[in-house]
Amino acid sequence: MSVKRVEDFITTIPDFPEEGILFRDVTTVIGSAEGFKLAVDELAALLSDVEFDVIAGTESRGFIFGTPLAYLLNKPFLPVRKKGKLPRQTVQKTYDLEYGSATIEIHKDDLKPGQRVVLIDDLIATGGTAKAAAELIEECGGKVVRIAFLIELKGLNGREVLKSYDVRSVVQYEGK
Amino acid sequence: MSVKRVEDFITTIPDFPEEGILFRDVTTVIGSAEGFKLAVDELAALLSDVEFDVIAGTESRGFIFGTPLAYLLNKPFLPVRKKGKLPRQTVQKTYDLEYGSATIEIHKDDLKPGQRVVLIDDLIATGGTAKAAAELIEECGGKVVRIAFLIELKGLNGREVLKSYDVRSVVQYEGK
Repeated sequence: MSVKRVEDFITTIPDFPEEGILFRDVTTVIGSAEGFKLAVDELAALLSDVEFDVIAGTESRGFIFGTPLAYLLNKPFLPVRKKGKLPRQTVQKTYDLEYGSATIEIHKDDLKPGQRVVLIDDLIATGGTAKAAAELIEECGGKVVRIAFLIELKGLNGREVLKSYDVRSVVQYEGK
Repeated sequence: MSVKRVEDFITTIPDFPEEGILFRDVTTVIGSAEGFKLAVDELAALLSDVEFDVIAGTESRGFIFGTPLAYLLNKPFLPVRKKGKLPRQTVQKTYDLEYGSATIEIHKDDLKPGQRVVLIDDLIATGGTAKAAAELIEECGGKVVRIAFLIELKGLNGREVLKSYDVRSVVQYEGK
């Protein structure tokens, strides 16, 4: 029996959400106890050489990988949420999507000045969401010391968009 | 120094999202390494006497508590998502909210017949979302063997709505 790797649990769905896109589906990773443990442990390994205070993740799939990491590494978790979901005073950032725009928020008082933050998400494509989240964290006084993704789509140049950050990923795909 | 409990980390926000509501804010639980660990460990304790195969959680706050539990207890995680987010074939359920309605989905093939499922969410208020999620899981062949919440608002009678299920909660509040 060969040892399984995270990529063995990722499903590729052609033409979702639209024609021509190869969608990398992580629900088959999290839908396997073995796959999910591998994914979280591999993400934790990407953080083993950096000191930090807080793990942040963007709604919703950033929550799926960020919160087990926070539990495992005994750190607080900072949720980066869609507009209108957080009950206390927030700061917002609006960023462009392929069609239209999106607004994300964090609680204004969730970060203390100088706190070192690791941002987690399931996938980097264009890098637009991660960039907006990282800028929002820095506007609130945090320092983004690493951004870690489970999956990186190398053909979309997200690393260029995030070039001022220390970006890591567990699994890389050449395409889009 | 007294030993802290989960409720020491919950913040109560008056008049959110509308006047007269005391909003129980869990972001201050997850925003503390100590509070988050306590919350996940207390939820795990609520599951210590039940055998199960899968942990399910509803987008988004069910993800925050459900995925660390899945990691900790070495179980797969089943995401119950808002409509249109899941890439493979889904089954849906639409249910009434106070104003309007909502539709949730799970992947049709994510459950095997007879699998024993624990459903996790941060809070039970009216119980409407949990009931819809539990019914959806059962329509797909799963058996909901327990529903566990971090917070229970007793004044809204959610237990009555969920009376055919085994419901547990970590922290109870008398009001709404």
